[in-house]
Amino acid sequence: MKEKLNIIKVGGGVVENAASLASLLSQFARMEGRKVLVHGGGRLATSMATRLGIESRMVGGRRITDEEMLRVVTMVYGGLVNKNIVAGLQAKGVKAIGLTGADGDVIRSHRRPLKRVKMDDGTEQMVDFGFVGDVDKVDARLLASLIESGNVPVVAPLTHDGEGHILNTNADTIASSVACALAGHYDVTLTFCFEKAGVLRDADDDSSVIPLITEEQAAVLIEDGIISGGMIPKIENAFSAIHQGVKQVIITHSENIDGTKGTTIKGEKVKN
Amino acid sequence: MKEKLNIIKVGGGVVENAASLASLLSQFARMEGRKVLVHGGGRLATSMATRLGIESRMVGGRRITDEEMLRVVTMVYGGLVNKNIVAGLQAKGVKAIGLTGADGDVIRSHRRPLKRVKMDDGTEQMVDFGFVGDVDKVDARLLASLIESGNVPVVAPLTHDGEGHILNTNADTIASSVACALAGHYDVTLTFCFEKAGVLRDADDDSSVIPLITEEQAAVLIEDGIISGGMIPKIENAFSAIHQGVKQVIITHSENIDGTKGTTIKGEKVKN
Repeated sequence: MKEKLNIIKVGGGVVENAASLASLLSQFARMEGRKVLVHGGGRLATSMATRLGIESRMVGGRRITDEEMLRVVTMVYGGLVNKNIVAGLQAKGVKAIGLTGADGDVIRSHRRPLKRVKMDDGTEQMVDFGFVGDVDKVDARLLASLIESGNVPVVAPLTHDGEGHILNTNADTIASSVACALAGHYDVTLTFCFEKAGVLRDADDDSSVIPLITEEQAAVLIEDGIISGGMIPKIENAFSAIHQGVKQVIITHSENIDGTKGTTIKGEKVKN
Repeated sequence: MKEKLNIIKVGGGVVENAASLASLLSQFARMEGRKVLVHGGGRLATSMATRLGIESRMVGGRRITDEEMLRVVTMVYGGLVNKNIVAGLQAKGVKAIGLTGADGDVIRSHRRPLKRVKMDDGTEQMVDFGFVGDVDKVDARLLASLIESGNVPVVAPLTHDGEGHILNTNADTIASSVACALAGHYDVTLTFCFEKAGVLRDADDDSSVIPLITEEQAAVLIEDGIISGGMIPKIENAFSAIHQGVKQVIITHSENIDGTKGTTIKGEKVKN
């Protein structure tokens, strides 16, 4: 039987705020067993860019990463956010080790080619996202060897192309890719932290969390319009991870990373 | 017999310049066997601080690290410099893995207490260097285990205090501490790269390198004024490392990191 592994992804909104970060680190430190933390940091990158007089350009919710912005995200994600999380976890007795995809060649990616993107005005344009990486492969062996030696990888949303370039990479994608790669070694639970309590029946009511969603139920919830907008790709990504061997995906509030209160997404039908 | 290990320290002057950095990485990639790279980055930190409107304050050649400056060095050393070196080495087939002292609890330090410092005007003052770490211990076990798995640690000049604080730490000190800690596991050569060809008989003549200095000879060279100024603490630190088990220390130009052309500092008397 495989050992359990928890992979927790937290976004920039949690890490930029000292109080929410402290709460997250306390919860994460209390989690027993093997674990990995994947973090974002987009809002801090945006504010650092602003202080440096660099304009943040977003298209379809994704950052355009030119050379100047690449320096900012390399500093903020790989340095400021990652190292403060690592030091914070060490203080709580967690043997955290910070990694970008370049470290140990853990996550190799390629620069995203020009993409056709639907703009706000309805037209389509070919967009160059710049130094943005789409993940090619994750070295599960090195990650597993670190984990088995008692280390807790803390992964920043940066990868590399094997040709000397750091590439900015979506933290959700990093978390999913790492989870899928480690699914061969572990019984993986992948938890996405979020500003809401989970997938909600009523977007304005945090008590309306749907506790469990199977693939069959998801199709119905999407058809009925209960799951809509930005939640649809999240759910699709969750099932994609499950098809690649991840045991379950949890979408929950960052105050409840143990997953007891959020939405659990599972592949198989559940009898109850 | 112990395996050989090369520890190379390069300063901020080398890493801030794209051409000298590229040359350094090529040389380092060509070195055979087990190796570790320790880097500085002070000049890049100073220029980033300036762009952010943060004043760099130095006392006795050492940076005062207030909270704002700590954020800058955490970004620049731990993120920008470290990750670009790691990605650059990966592109040359070196399995580089970037570390600060916080990662894996590799280097624990304590915040430097107030220190009595001689000022430029000759007076003495008690100086608070801020978030600056004096090294307490290095976890040689984790470093050796990474090295034995074929990884090449790339160490940034940042440590942590075990209470959640990153501390700015002199890169020469990091290199010496790591070398001394690994001397129990390896036959360590510690190389300090430098803008000069080595320890010179005539400071203005790069062809006057003193190829070998023993402790006995060093005393004479200092007495004769041939070794003077900032070179004296470098030599003292070298012998301190040798007394702690480091096999030899090399002081050389960053264009010659294989140590064939610089000054070798050894503990024992050498017959020739």
